[in-house]
Amino acid sequence: MTSFALNVRLEGDSYFVADLPLSSVRLMKDANYPWLLLIPRKPDLVEIIDLDESDQQQLMREIAIASNVLRSVTDCEKLNIGALGNMVSQLHVHVIARFRDDAAWPGPVWGAAPAETYDPEKADTLIEQLWDALSSEGE
Amino acid sequence: MTSFALNVRLEGDSYFVADLPLSSVRLMKDANYPWLLLIPRKPDLVEIIDLDESDQQQLMREIAIASNVLRSVTDCEKLNIGALGNMVSQLHVHVIARFRDDAAWPGPVWGAAPAETYDPEKADTLIEQLWDALSSEGE
Repeated sequence: MTSFALNVRLEGDSYFVADLPLSSVRLMKDANYPWLLLIPRKPDLVEIIDLDESDQQQLMREIAIASNVLRSVTDCEKLNIGALGNMVSQLHVHVIARFRDDAAWPGPVWGAAPAETYDPEKADTLIEQLWDALSSEGE
Repeated sequence: MTSFALNVRLEGDSYFVADLPLSSVRLMKDANYPWLLLIPRKPDLVEIIDLDESDQQQLMREIAIASNVLRSVTDCEKLNIGALGNMVSQLHVHVIARFRDDAAWPGPVWGAAPAETYDPEKADTLIEQLWDALSSEGE
């Protein structure tokens, strides 16, 4: 039985934000959209249905937490949630804040526009706001 | 308090398959991909977090049911799950069977290729297989 190891591509493409009971929450290194990844810390997960029912329910709780947090911190117009995994198969759930004037609207973010680098101070500020909000929500 | 009414665009773009306790399950009229929609039958829903916690948990159960059914019926290589709602805001969850040789792989299906019309017999057969499998799974 293997132990959990964060996929190197997911790691390289994102900043750590916080750990919830099941998932690590990370911020994608793309300033076009406030874009979270939730990565359940269990080995050999590809599909949501690879989780047992109890963990599926916990994942939904954490998707809701991340959604509420992202919306309150960014005041976004729409949330986009997705679990695709076509290119990186380690299970990860996207929770993305969308705006009508963002780089991909109304299309989905994946593959739409080249990633924009964060100004380091902006990234830090956003991560701190998300961490604060998650600490209040995520029990 | 309004009652639930299926969005006309979602209705026009899909075939009815079956009702689960919370969601209606429909098959998108796009033969490029075996593509289900789950539409919770409650009014005024836009985001998953508009559902109360109990319904969020039921939605996750139904996503799992639809995922298991779609994978067993299609023998797909990958599942894609998403709740976007940028163009049609009525809450609907996509559960899509993906194959490495499909029209959009590895990209997401949304906006990738023009929808392909189903041969009516193929649509009927697929809907029947899905209905049979859902009837066994969805309690």
